Amino acid sequence: MSDKIFVFGHQKPDTDAIGSSMAFSYLSNHRKNMKLNTEVVALGPANEETQFALDTFGLELPRIVTSAKAEGVDTVILTDHNEFQQSISDIESLTIMGVVDHHRIANFHTASPLFMSVEPVGSASSIVYRKFLEEGLEIPKALAGMMLSGLISDTLLLKSPTTHPTDFKVAEELAEIAGVDLETYGLAMLKAGTNLASKTAEQLIDIDAKTFELNGKKVRVAQVNTVDIPEVLERLDEIKSAISAYIEAGHFDDFVLMITDIVNSNSEIVEVGTDADKVEAAFNFKLEEGHAFLKGAVSRKKQVVPQLTDAFND
Amino acid sequence: MSDKIFVFGHQKPDTDAIGSSMAFSYLSNHRKNMKLNTEVVALGPANEETQFALDTFGLELPRIVTSAKAEGVDTVILTDHNEFQQSISDIESLTIMGVVDHHRIANFHTASPLFMSVEPVGSASSIVYRKFLEEGLEIPKALAGMMLSGLISDTLLLKSPTTHPTDFKVAEELAEIAGVDLETYGLAMLKAGTNLASKTAEQLIDIDAKTFELNGKKVRVAQVNTVDIPEVLERLDEIKSAISAYIEAGHFDDFVLMITDIVNSNSEIVEVGTDADKVEAAFNFKLEEGHAFLKGAVSRKKQVVPQLTDAFND
Repeated sequence: MSDKIFVFGHQKPDTDAIGSSMAFSYLSNHRKNMKLNTEVVALGPANEETQFALDTFGLELPRIVTSAKAEGVDTVILTDHNEFQQSISDIESLTIMGVVDHHRIANFHTASPLFMSVEPVGSASSIVYRKFLEEGLEIPKALAGMMLSGLISDTLLLKSPTTHPTDFKVAEELAEIAGVDLETYGLAMLKAGTNLASKTAEQLIDIDAKTFELNGKKVRVAQVNTVDIPEVLERLDEIKSAISAYIEAGHFDDFVLMITDIVNSNSEIVEVGTDADKVEAAFNFKLEEGHAFLKGAVSRKKQVVPQLTDAFND
Repeated sequence: MSDKIFVFGHQKPDTDAIGSSMAFSYLSNHRKNMKLNTEVVALGPANEETQFALDTFGLELPRIVTSAKAEGVDTVILTDHNEFQQSISDIESLTIMGVVDHHRIANFHTASPLFMSVEPVGSASSIVYRKFLEEGLEIPKALAGMMLSGLISDTLLLKSPTTHPTDFKVAEELAEIAGVDLETYGLAMLKAGTNLASKTAEQLIDIDAKTFELNGKKVRVAQVNTVDIPEVLERLDEIKSAISAYIEAGHFDDFVLMITDIVNSNSEIVEVGTDADKVEAAFNFKLEEGHAFLKGAVSRKKQVVPQLTDAFND
């Protein structure tokens, strides 16, 4: 085993997973004390939104790995996630040196003490940005752009209820360093992620999907962004067929898809699985043909997963 | 439910549990932004070492509570622990707003995002001290004394391998604010905790004990400090009888007692339970009459629990 440490975000990486891991790896290698030998890697390919951000700031996606041990690495730092089922395949056998995250803590444990910086803020990138300030380390322009992109992505341009009061200033300062206009760049980046017409239903349901264990049930919760919910619903039969095949192949109990309107900040919820009653109870609505409108919901983390957790535990 | 937030350390509180929770509650109530309405409470009485520290700095032990809901409180902040079985009795039904800790993460989960500051340093008090510095908040002399006491207690006056390189400076600065000589005060405080002769065997094995779930086994790991291991071993039969009764009453599988020589930095390990073979494998020694010498071992967290975890998982 080498002394190299991998830094990475979650599987099915989104822009915050990529942005926070790239920036935190740089910070770890360049801080004044306790310099580390880290390499940022990705657990999967970039989605179109993330690729837009990388292209804008002239960066390449980190190389993709699926096992640390296979690369001779046994120590890792996680950003933007902590749940093992969202992490690298051999996470159970690795030493976790650190975690920078803004999610709930679940399905996570270590054998030894570690560094954990968890805050209920809009993005993991927001926390990494604060660490640069604490360290007094200059932020390269492109990495400021990637952290900004992570924050914009996770908060839908600061409109999601997951946005923390401190995130507005973070966004402003990062936009300044990155040399972009927050609103113009933000909307362009989000729109780059809404090109669903070019995707098969199988690709669409897998753009940004996470697995949760809810009271013993294996539930996949996916989210796609759009500027036109009805256009996506025209493909509902095709999407439900793809989900059914996905459930069967992955031995899931349920699949919940959020189709999120990024302009008006609402979501259509599609449910396929054995626990439609739990999903209806979670959101206090009635599914028709397996879907229903959820007004004002844009955040999986704050407006969907806790509600599902409660309903599955009832 | 009130809007009050409880701040507390673990059950069977030691000096760091009390010191870190008192100081963090004060910090939370006095910071410039996001002032909270917290009350520090304790999950049990002070041990003699902690009482010595409280007396020295003119403070009272926080009031003892065993349930938050019974006090009309449903939001809590944990210091110096995260494992639920070491926490308040109704932890599973509460909202955990924050964690300040320096232990491994295990048997811990939340439904929502939270604040977590975890660092592999010598004491939870070390982390709280850094938060005062970041906040630019003046530290009251008595609270500096309690944080210093927590750090001295957990690191056996900076001699344990759990001592972090940054802890030496923390101790120096806290001693300065508290107005005590680090070495003189530290040794006096540690010695105050070694008065085992006055205790029954039942009291002795319960001074500083924590429960761990190791691969499905319920293992209690206790530690007592002494300046004379042979003197404690004279009471071995009495101690083993007390442990056996304790195991039976608490449905434990094993009880591991560390009798730690704080002057020479060694421990005698006493094991009672069904997995003596696992304990022998963990420390690569042979138990005789249920005990064996473990040279250089003073840290439960670094030199005992990870080794037991590995052995129980093998």
